[in-house]
Amino acid sequence: MKIDGTPFRTIWQDADGVVQVIDQRWLPHDFRIVPLRTRAEFATAIRDMWVRGAPLIGATAAWGMAVQMAKDPSDASLAETWEVLHDTRPTAINLRWALDEMRRVLSPLPPVMRAAAAAKRAAEICDEDVEINRQIGLHGLEIIKAISARKSGPVNILTHCNAGWLATVDWGTATSPIYHADAAGIPVHVFVDETRPRNQGAQLTAWELNSHGIPHDLIVDNAGGHLMQHGEVDMVIVGTDRTTARGDVCNKIGTYLKALAARANGVPFYVALPSPTIDWRVHDGVRGIPIEERNGAEVTLVQGRTKDGRIESVQISPDGTGARNPAFDVTPAELVTGLLTERGLCPATEAGMGAMFPDLKAAVGG
Amino acid sequence: MKIDGTPFRTIWQDADGVVQVIDQRWLPHDFRIVPLRTRAEFATAIRDMWVRGAPLIGATAAWGMAVQMAKDPSDASLAETWEVLHDTRPTAINLRWALDEMRRVLSPLPPVMRAAAAAKRAAEICDEDVEINRQIGLHGLEIIKAISARKSGPVNILTHCNAGWLATVDWGTATSPIYHADAAGIPVHVFVDETRPRNQGAQLTAWELNSHGIPHDLIVDNAGGHLMQHGEVDMVIVGTDRTTARGDVCNKIGTYLKALAARANGVPFYVALPSPTIDWRVHDGVRGIPIEERNGAEVTLVQGRTKDGRIESVQISPDGTGARNPAFDVTPAELVTGLLTERGLCPATEAGMGAMFPDLKAAVGG
Repeated sequence: MKIDGTPFRTIWQDADGVVQVIDQRWLPHDFRIVPLRTRAEFATAIRDMWVRGAPLIGATAAWGMAVQMAKDPSDASLAETWEVLHDTRPTAINLRWALDEMRRVLSPLPPVMRAAAAAKRAAEICDEDVEINRQIGLHGLEIIKAISARKSGPVNILTHCNAGWLATVDWGTATSPIYHADAAGIPVHVFVDETRPRNQGAQLTAWELNSHGIPHDLIVDNAGGHLMQHGEVDMVIVGTDRTTARGDVCNKIGTYLKALAARANGVPFYVALPSPTIDWRVHDGVRGIPIEERNGAEVTLVQGRTKDGRIESVQISPDGTGARNPAFDVTPAELVTGLLTERGLCPATEAGMGAMFPDLKAAVGG
Repeated sequence: MKIDGTPFRTIWQDADGVVQVIDQRWLPHDFRIVPLRTRAEFATAIRDMWVRGAPLIGATAAWGMAVQMAKDPSDASLAETWEVLHDTRPTAINLRWALDEMRRVLSPLPPVMRAAAAAKRAAEICDEDVEINRQIGLHGLEIIKAISARKSGPVNILTHCNAGWLATVDWGTATSPIYHADAAGIPVHVFVDETRPRNQGAQLTAWELNSHGIPHDLIVDNAGGHLMQHGEVDMVIVGTDRTTARGDVCNKIGTYLKALAARANGVPFYVALPSPTIDWRVHDGVRGIPIEERNGAEVTLVQGRTKDGRIESVQISPDGTGARNPAFDVTPAELVTGLLTERGLCPATEAGMGAMFPDLKAAVGG
């Protein structure tokens, strides 16, 4: 999407073939582009969340593999790179998907051919992500259109975390229908959950929407239930880090609470789901998906910009108080109105997902 | 309760008769005591949340009336003071209760007798609050005891916002059962919701529990649903700013989301309810209670302590992004397991509340 009128992706090769990413840690206050030149740099960028969002993590891992293949295309290097990059964010299913895909393409090739093939496949994975998200947007646009036809004023959409274009290569998943609706002239307004602890909503989604000129308001994560209770939310769209074969949705911590509120108030709750994010091997998400517990400092410290323009972290709690920090939660499928995939809207059920993606399900023996 | 071994209340008259409060805006980083000498100072202290929490707001308003009566005990002054202090926080039912009570006592008296009577009644209101909270704690202790008897390890209690002793004159409402359980030797552990936007959980509840030595962990407001889903929460106790005659609970924004999660996961959800917080004139809380919408800067700015020890606010969102900031929400009575009052545990129903408080209900013609 555009930043000050200039189209960007979140990851790209520059004219010299160097992979560049947006270092998202400094948004919304500072827009920084950084090159990633070594496997270690790619691993750091994923682990320390310079890049985040399931699709972008996958794309970054694919490029990380490609960069390593250019340095050392041996079998040992290939195996080790899979491990090193996979260990960076264990919850992200796209990470595994992208690494498995790279290994599938590269393993049969003689080492000397791997560098070129890896770069080609990494670029394709990026283009495929863009196309998937465009399709999700077109399918989601129909839902927004239908709501808009039934009401006056803008369609009010609540979203959690950042499943925006910054979380993908372009378009975003949850935001793609919003950008498409805006482009189609349908008035939309977005309630942006700030999404503690890391505030991806406040820092990234708000920045994206602001840069693109989409009307929006930041809200605390606590506010969505009240707004739904008072008819101020027409629909919820969120992304997902991993969705199980029966439609249980693992996403940023707090998603589950919004799904409960949506159900209690008759608000449709959609999950934008690129198919690589489906984990066909897991059914019961609450029992089957290990939840990453991150450093408590993410809870006790909040980053922002001081009055005099410095980016600084402030401690909100007393010394001596510890914190628990589960990074994701699982929304049971029964709370999900529908899964918005690149092939269309799909019921969040084992049968619905199997019917929409028989090929993918069969590929994992599901 | 105690701070570094010294017992404190949140509001008191010093040896010279000057009313002193803890200026809670600087907690947990800085413990400041300030005198309040004029009606304007009392109004500012309530409006700008130097003091907060429904019971403490009521007690502060009572003392504000008393201080003004010492300056000008005329009928006009009495009427004007009621208005000035009431306008500071329209949602707080205790504020109205305390001001009505002061007016009831003072109106029939000749002006010359009002100053002494006002100081006496304000002091009594404080003592009554302490006794109410002590009783709530004793009744809540029985619930915690029963849970403790059924499990090994500590009783895990989740609370939202600060309904602690800092929100009252002493003991707290939601925290009183916790302090009583701790005193009774029952192991407890508290999950403290940070409670955005103003972080009263992180800043006040954590500070209280930490000062008192109660085991606790800070969590983001998003985390409670996940913890309940995984059996990590034995009960929820929250406070309330206003509870309707049928048991709908108006409390800090986000309470409703925790109540939904508790219901979905079979976790008991208790509301600590001092009877002055009941609004017998309102039944349907969602339709009948106006929700204060506060300044968006509370959402976009977060206050904390910098590495070098300054208390500073940082902006978490991009310039150009606005915010919506509803300060409270309403939890429908059907989500409330029980109301923990000074007279005992009461069902959150019209009949249950009427049976527990027939005298109070009759007094308002209910």
